[in-house]
Amino acid sequence: MPKAFVTGAAGFIGSTLVDRLLSEGVEVVGYDNFSTGRKTFLQKAMTNPKFTLVKADLLDPFALTKAMRGASEVWHFSANADVRFGLEHPRKDLEQNILATSNVLEAMRHNDIRDIFFSSTGSVYGEARVFPTPEDAPMPIQTSLYATSKLSGEGLISSYCLGYGFRGVVFRFVSILGERYTHGHVLDFVQHLLNNPNRLPVMGDGTQKKSYLYVQDCIEALMVVRNHMPKVFDIYNLGADEYCTVNDSIGWITALMGLKPTLEYAGGKRGWVGDNPFIFLETKKIRSLGWKNKLSIQQAVEQTARWLLDNQSNF
Amino acid sequence: MPKAFVTGAAGFIGSTLVDRLLSEGVEVVGYDNFSTGRKTFLQKAMTNPKFTLVKADLLDPFALTKAMRGASEVWHFSANADVRFGLEHPRKDLEQNILATSNVLEAMRHNDIRDIFFSSTGSVYGEARVFPTPEDAPMPIQTSLYATSKLSGEGLISSYCLGYGFRGVVFRFVSILGERYTHGHVLDFVQHLLNNPNRLPVMGDGTQKKSYLYVQDCIEALMVVRNHMPKVFDIYNLGADEYCTVNDSIGWITALMGLKPTLEYAGGKRGWVGDNPFIFLETKKIRSLGWKNKLSIQQAVEQTARWLLDNQSNF
Repeated sequence: MPKAFVTGAAGFIGSTLVDRLLSEGVEVVGYDNFSTGRKTFLQKAMTNPKFTLVKADLLDPFALTKAMRGASEVWHFSANADVRFGLEHPRKDLEQNILATSNVLEAMRHNDIRDIFFSSTGSVYGEARVFPTPEDAPMPIQTSLYATSKLSGEGLISSYCLGYGFRGVVFRFVSILGERYTHGHVLDFVQHLLNNPNRLPVMGDGTQKKSYLYVQDCIEALMVVRNHMPKVFDIYNLGADEYCTVNDSIGWITALMGLKPTLEYAGGKRGWVGDNPFIFLETKKIRSLGWKNKLSIQQAVEQTARWLLDNQSNF
Repeated sequence: MPKAFVTGAAGFIGSTLVDRLLSEGVEVVGYDNFSTGRKTFLQKAMTNPKFTLVKADLLDPFALTKAMRGASEVWHFSANADVRFGLEHPRKDLEQNILATSNVLEAMRHNDIRDIFFSSTGSVYGEARVFPTPEDAPMPIQTSLYATSKLSGEGLISSYCLGYGFRGVVFRFVSILGERYTHGHVLDFVQHLLNNPNRLPVMGDGTQKKSYLYVQDCIEALMVVRNHMPKVFDIYNLGADEYCTVNDSIGWITALMGLKPTLEYAGGKRGWVGDNPFIFLETKKIRSLGWKNKLSIQQAVEQTARWLLDNQSNF
């Protein structure tokens, strides 16, 4: 009987994953320190007898090791996902992403659990030179503490796979959109427009090209890979097979809200230091397993904006 | 007046670097916790009034921040260089390489020091698929905790360069040979042969292909790059323009010692889990600055074996 241990279980993607695993009949232990996670995201899960919630921190090796006991697979989806503000607290990514991932691996090793799935990021490609960017793109220069910490997590996992007989899968996500979305450009734009429908500040020059993926399409890909476990270690890019500009996103959101604000561009190719002006991942590998995204980027942006407007009390 | 802060100052490469910087007229503060460093390597430096030695740990942020005060450049050459035994203590690389590098960068930031040189490793290329392996090789899968920790250090440095206006240079070394060599295959072979001249155990099948570089050639490359500081961040492979097999090394060492031992192969393509059966770095980039190695790999192996035989009290 499979039993999944999910870190970041009360987060956007983590809680959606919890719901999906439960609906597949998998027993789930959710682990979250609720620093950014939300109880409301687990409301449905909490009614399921197959779900257990542990409120504790990944930096607490005692609680972590105990909570993981008896699990057959680990989904490590907790992270400091605060990409943009890494430079304001340069130890946060180190502690919450690198050290926490090491703790997860050590707790697995001591509990004799060998299967791990890890939420990494397309930003490990830095400012890629090949588009769409494949999993074996030319070795990049890291442009953010966040991506550095995720790449470290990937390396820790592959080393444990080779060294201790683990099986690991790394998912390099584009930005994920959809219900329970808690941070990112769609939220920023919607919030700004609710506060002031006439003016919209835009980081960069609006031409930054980004790819996104709808959360349920993301979770479906995770389930597909769960049925194709590698012998040792594997990496999958996850993203839509297209990209859009920041200006496209703005157009879709303002149309949905029926607004025509003045756009106030900060200027520059990048929204912030370390922002990648073009993110577009090659997804041949995951598609070769039969997966494809059901929602286009436009549909995902609109669905996210609609959910945010319907759930304003959440933010 | 330049003042260099050198971590791992009592190590093999670190102490050789200290001597060279002093001979260039640079003031040097050497920092070492003497966990593996040796006082004897700093004997000459200690007689130079431009040299100061601080015995302290990189995991002590107080001592580190104080010791770095007034430096104009940092050479971060301290590391847990114990590649082979990473799996026996999976937190060591994390603490002594990743966390220590983060501490070095934070101490620099708080001391307003912006130039950093970092000793990384060719093993960040994992099991490379392109030979000779260029700096922008296809993105590899990390095969050891050591390489993972070095790649993390690289990413922390590039992120600080972009985010805080640092200038950084990463050197990806092959294994370095020469005077003050303290660990690695030449020492292992010489020690075994001194203990038992008739039999020599060999990890793997002896066909592993490796590249090496003589320590003075390495230091010369560092000085060349010091005169070609990048605006932001740069990476240089450092290695000889050739490779040899483990069997070649054994042949040179046994010939030098006048021995014909029975070779006892453990078998397998790899000497240990995570060992890379082929390491050969492309060095066009450093050569384009006018550098080239003076000693061949054979000369470097022989010089190392000779030094080890002349300095048996050191090990």
